[in-house]
Amino acid sequence: MILKGEEKLTKKDRNLYLTNTPLQQAMEEYLHLISQSFVGVSDETIMVQEALGRKTASPVFAKVSAPHYNAAAMDGIAVDASITNGASETNPIQLKIDRDYTVVNTGAPLTMERNAVIMVEDIVELDHETVEIRGAASPWQHVRPVGEDMVKGELILSENHMIRPQDIAALLTGGIGWVKVKRKIAVGVIPTGSEITELIDPLPEGKIIESNSKMFQALLSSYEAMGITYPIVKDEPEKIRLAIEKAVDENDLVVVNAGSSAGTKDYTVDVLREIGNVFTHGVAIKPGKPAILAEVKGKPVVGIPGYPVSAYVVFEQMVKPLVYELQNQKPIQVEKLKATLARRIISSLKHEEFVRVKVGKVDERWIATPLNRGAGVTMSLVRADGILRIPQSTEGYDKGDNVEIELSRSKEDLSNTIVSVGSHDLVMDLLANELQKKNDNLALSSAHVGSMGGIIAMKQKECHLAPIHLLDEISGEYNIDYVRKYFANEQMSMIKLVKRSQGLMVQKGNPKEITSLEDLNRKDISMINRQKGAGTRILLDYMLKTKKMDPNLLQGYQREMTTHMAVAVAIKNNTADCGLGVESAAKAMELDFIPIAWEEYDLLTPKYMLETKEVKKLLEVVRSDSFVKQIMSLGGYDCSQIGKTILI
Amino acid sequence: MILKGEEKLTKKDRNLYLTNTPLQQAMEEYLHLISQSFVGVSDETIMVQEALGRKTASPVFAKVSAPHYNAAAMDGIAVDASITNGASETNPIQLKIDRDYTVVNTGAPLTMERNAVIMVEDIVELDHETVEIRGAASPWQHVRPVGEDMVKGELILSENHMIRPQDIAALLTGGIGWVKVKRKIAVGVIPTGSEITELIDPLPEGKIIESNSKMFQALLSSYEAMGITYPIVKDEPEKIRLAIEKAVDENDLVVVNAGSSAGTKDYTVDVLREIGNVFTHGVAIKPGKPAILAEVKGKPVVGIPGYPVSAYVVFEQMVKPLVYELQNQKPIQVEKLKATLARRIISSLKHEEFVRVKVGKVDERWIATPLNRGAGVTMSLVRADGILRIPQSTEGYDKGDNVEIELSRSKEDLSNTIVSVGSHDLVMDLLANELQKKNDNLALSSAHVGSMGGIIAMKQKECHLAPIHLLDEISGEYNIDYVRKYFANEQMSMIKLVKRSQGLMVQKGNPKEITSLEDLNRKDISMINRQKGAGTRILLDYMLKTKKMDPNLLQGYQREMTTHMAVAVAIKNNTADCGLGVESAAKAMELDFIPIAWEEYDLLTPKYMLETKEVKKLLEVVRSDSFVKQIMSLGGYDCSQIGKTILI
Repeated sequence: MILKGEEKLTKKDRNLYLTNTPLQQAMEEYLHLISQSFVGVSDETIMVQEALGRKTASPVFAKVSAPHYNAAAMDGIAVDASITNGASETNPIQLKIDRDYTVVNTGAPLTMERNAVIMVEDIVELDHETVEIRGAASPWQHVRPVGEDMVKGELILSENHMIRPQDIAALLTGGIGWVKVKRKIAVGVIPTGSEITELIDPLPEGKIIESNSKMFQALLSSYEAMGITYPIVKDEPEKIRLAIEKAVDENDLVVVNAGSSAGTKDYTVDVLREIGNVFTHGVAIKPGKPAILAEVKGKPVVGIPGYPVSAYVVFEQMVKPLVYELQNQKPIQVEKLKATLARRIISSLKHEEFVRVKVGKVDERWIATPLNRGAGVTMSLVRADGILRIPQSTEGYDKGDNVEIELSRSKEDLSNTIVSVGSHDLVMDLLANELQKKNDNLALSSAHVGSMGGIIAMKQKECHLAPIHLLDEISGEYNIDYVRKYFANEQMSMIKLVKRSQGLMVQKGNPKEITSLEDLNRKDISMINRQKGAGTRILLDYMLKTKKMDPNLLQGYQREMTTHMAVAVAIKNNTADCGLGVESAAKAMELDFIPIAWEEYDLLTPKYMLETKEVKKLLEVVRSDSFVKQIMSLGGYDCSQIGKTILI
Repeated sequence: MILKGEEKLTKKDRNLYLTNTPLQQAMEEYLHLISQSFVGVSDETIMVQEALGRKTASPVFAKVSAPHYNAAAMDGIAVDASITNGASETNPIQLKIDRDYTVVNTGAPLTMERNAVIMVEDIVELDHETVEIRGAASPWQHVRPVGEDMVKGELILSENHMIRPQDIAALLTGGIGWVKVKRKIAVGVIPTGSEITELIDPLPEGKIIESNSKMFQALLSSYEAMGITYPIVKDEPEKIRLAIEKAVDENDLVVVNAGSSAGTKDYTVDVLREIGNVFTHGVAIKPGKPAILAEVKGKPVVGIPGYPVSAYVVFEQMVKPLVYELQNQKPIQVEKLKATLARRIISSLKHEEFVRVKVGKVDERWIATPLNRGAGVTMSLVRADGILRIPQSTEGYDKGDNVEIELSRSKEDLSNTIVSVGSHDLVMDLLANELQKKNDNLALSSAHVGSMGGIIAMKQKECHLAPIHLLDEISGEYNIDYVRKYFANEQMSMIKLVKRSQGLMVQKGNPKEITSLEDLNRKDISMINRQKGAGTRILLDYMLKTKKMDPNLLQGYQREMTTHMAVAVAIKNNTADCGLGVESAAKAMELDFIPIAWEEYDLLTPKYMLETKEVKKLLEVVRSDSFVKQIMSLGGYDCSQIGKTILI
């Protein structure tokens, strides 16, 4: 929302002064305080078949023995063993029904006078009432005695035991139909913010879709807790207070989302100070600094920042241990892995940082590549394979450092992932999708760092594939010359992908009447650029040079985006008049397009990779009709060479 | 049930001839056949917030960009950057509201004429309408451009992607409220058997509680499939046929429990032959041999044996891969561990065997101890920490072999477990329960192999504790002499536990008028014994010797049970007249008791273990009033020395 002049702007009225408490210290103190005031989770009695994953609230003892009678363990006849004494091949004994034996199937009860079972295989039936046996039976042979499985009164499960499928069978077998378990922790989630809204279509400008509470609900269900989301509360202190009081009454733990920072509209901390105690406001983590740890009526209340990545980190780092503490459980351990860092990361000494990384296995070495660090980039959570923690006291890590990653995908899945680093094109998204669709256990992971970034990553053995489109200024040829130059002593190969149409994207109807690159010199035209090292940037710089245009005179030349779509959307939204990019992106964003050049966009890979089953499967997809059809429908592509391989 | 004479007993009418197909071969052929006839799982469209753990059925692209407008990334004022050129500490510039700036909070949209945000911290407010700045703003500073998180049309999730909490946030952020996912596999479960019953009280003789279907439901839910259990069907071919046909119509996969073997009442395979095709009847595994792999109307139908352990093994080994195959997923990998085998296991060359084992970490070495191998012992599944597979071609493993265990508890939990091997007493169950109740991450695992078994396990460093009660025949003292003899060169310690009353358990009211051990000589008395190596057996043999009684003349001397409770229950059920055991077991089973001796039941442990935090916590529990109170309520115990430690 836009504030009017009567609202205060200066520091004196704002909670600018967040503390910078280290995470571990803040949590230790908080868990200690909360454990003193928390009254504990009550028990509930539920049906055994609904108790999977729940924890017993008291020891469970068998109510009946299993079996509760002496039972035949085989199909055959039940006898008193003593009457079989002396039977042998040379001295068969005949037995009469009822008087000497009873026919029994497995599981049938033995009457008092019978104490052994002879298997049907060891019997010769003479007539319906007579059998012959040719061996003696020993007492209790082929009999399941009472209590063989469990004895009445025996301990089946200890208190505090997490119930598994086999435990359910054992409880029922022991005659237990209902079991006392610990109630799940109830967590009230209050989304706040005048600017947030449930998903509506069309979405008004200035409104943000409320997605955090749904993410929290899912996280809570993975912690085995029960989330209850309340309606969105506007940024008004009185409404926030009422919502928190209600949620505290109805739950064991309350989470207030956003309003936790120190802006003019951030009332959460003031309300919590008024109705309870705030222990910490400001934790030394990034993202997630403006978190709040408080208590209202003896129950924990946590304030969580609004940006989705901050919200995720604070939830996992602070709410998760709290939930497990209240449930008197340990959190499930996160799988960890040691990896080589692909890029240097600089971090402040002031905070512990949680960096999302992609992880891939190349040449038997695990490689971690940092993703976008913006707290607002939900997609960095989706793309991440794990988290790298940078401790508060370090300035970051160097490229090549051996770092520990907390994984969010399994090591096994990650081993079955083709790692691509290089230029971005929509075709790579299609390829990732087709590959995963056709091969359940093969994924394609793409990092977008531009063509030169791809060449460098390949050189350093940090990826399997590098999508590139690099024009050699002298030969005018694409890709091959660069590969020859950078991989003079290595056997490389190129998987031909597409030719694509590069050109100027301009607003629909081309209102500024842009017709060629020379128009970028005009004072009424602002452009938007790609980052250094991107093939598109290299192409632009090459053309500016041939046309003897000075980049520094172009408005917007310094404003860099990292994908074609980001350039397209900036133009679509009128924050720039034009930018160089591919036709498919212009088409996707409904922009006009002025073609400038066709370029070749190919996949570089070491020669030996062509023989791996992963790349063979990739080639199958690349060469499939359905894939080519999808590419052609994007517009601006030529697939005539697709799937050919060249050795360099 | 008891069959009458008109029923057939001989081989010609029975399906005696099960095949012995190796598991892997049977499953490979079956999965191949089923994948050809299976029509596939359909899709369904569900709300995003309910999609946790589900798999996308098509790629998902963003419907809106996020943010969908250029948004302030900080609280402050929005300006056109060009009007701030030249501002510095020495040359502050004044700006007027509305004309030059708009007040914005984080997230507020920027209007067309503004392209930068100046943070509130960098502003001096002169009056409500005027601010002063002391530095120039660069275009697009502190602005979240449209699409910074995701761009409309961008791929959020590939097809075949398992939805996580962060994916839910990303979908909603991209304007996606509903998502197309793969339907869960529906699995119909049909319990059959005239002898099985839902849990009822009292349980009639000859009736068995139906527990397998509830275990299957829980297993299916852990496979992310949906189980539907049908009512129990009696052993009548027509009823079984109708039930299978109905379940096949309503599900993707059907599981028929029991009736899968080759007894007179085992109709499942005949029915399946009649209405479909049986591919395999009899798999070379133990337990679980009589499994059936069949097809009805193109859908898979699996016949599962009735014994709970067989049922569990067949479900995990055959139904689980089938469910994942139909869902086009890989099963989650089971955690594995290399361990030293504590006992020799002999297995037949005819089948692959699945042995339940307890696993513990002693002196940095993992030890696997085999449990009861009976297919009817549900409790062996409860007690097991994992499964040891013995391949079909091997005769078993030797004591000390390094074997691979498929874990059913986490390695971490197992590291936090005190391993006890030795004599059994109810006090050990109470101790395990109290320890787990008071320490969430500390467990006590007990194997019952008798006192001498405990001494040997301790000698071989296979346990932390050995509960023993061993009477030295010469000194007449308990335990100490044995420890001195077997651990002459080691520093050991003894944790005093209880004195307990040993005696003869007899039926209520003592109908056979037994008064002393000498009565065991009577012809009308049958006894029941404990296994060799049990302290109680040693005590009995010692007393028989002093009384010069010949064990071989005692009826039932050869019949061995491994716990006091098993002896008590055999007497309770009239299969023996008496047996030596502890008073608490007699009391638990409501038997009469003739006291014979007090013995000392103590915990042997190496001296250094007393200093570990695990044993310190154990001692805390042992010495607690609540624990002593529980023991005393069992009857037959003296706790005067409990918790004292003696160095030997």
